[in-house]
Amino acid sequence: MAVDLELAPKTKRPAGEPCCEPVVYPDIDRERAARMAEVAKALGDPVRLQLVDVLRKHAGKVCVCELVPLFDISQPTLSHHLKKLRDAGIVDSERRGLWAYYYVLPDALQELTAWLS
Amino acid sequence: MAVDLELAPKTKRPAGEPCCEPVVYPDIDRERAARMAEVAKALGDPVRLQLVDVLRKHAGKVCVCELVPLFDISQPTLSHHLKKLRDAGIVDSERRGLWAYYYVLPDALQELTAWLS
Repeated sequence: MAVDLELAPKTKRPAGEPCCEPVVYPDIDRERAARMAEVAKALGDPVRLQLVDVLRKHAGKVCVCELVPLFDISQPTLSHHLKKLRDAGIVDSERRGLWAYYYVLPDALQELTAWLS
Repeated sequence: MAVDLELAPKTKRPAGEPCCEPVVYPDIDRERAARMAEVAKALGDPVRLQLVDVLRKHAGKVCVCELVPLFDISQPTLSHHLKKLRDAGIVDSERRGLWAYYYVLPDALQELTAWLS
């Protein structure tokens, strides 16, 4: 049900009539939340999710030249997505000759996965 | 190591010199990737992550009036974050008297969690 908080009356509730039972505080502190949010944000795109899916299931490092044909996007756009994943610490790359090879960093998704589970 | 894909030569590699071994395709189709990316994107903010953390660990529904004091943000900003979570199908709310009560939808995070695990 859509409820706009702005519509909620700003009046105090009468003394002795608590609106609700008390809640717990978040277990995760701001710093940990920021780390996990950065990872989640990087995964917040279908192409990046599929990129991570491919890289995770491939044991080794995957050449960019093999990734481009998998997606119906330009190489610069793919590069942009890989950069977002690298900036979030999810993937890294190394150069072999003419090509860049990408791989998922060990434990990159562990903290978020553990929190979600 | 930072590697710009745009810097990679556009030349074909010589016949008989494959740049790399073949890779698998993504197991997740575009539709499933889009669903999970929407959830991940909604979790891509520290306040929203902490909101979900509070709501998940609380067995019942949590009054907005209890959520506001937990965060150092205005009520309209909190409302904006809750709307993003609701739009992504992670939380929902119901009205009881003057207040809106929020709760995490069952199985909302299941698909993303299963993929990550």
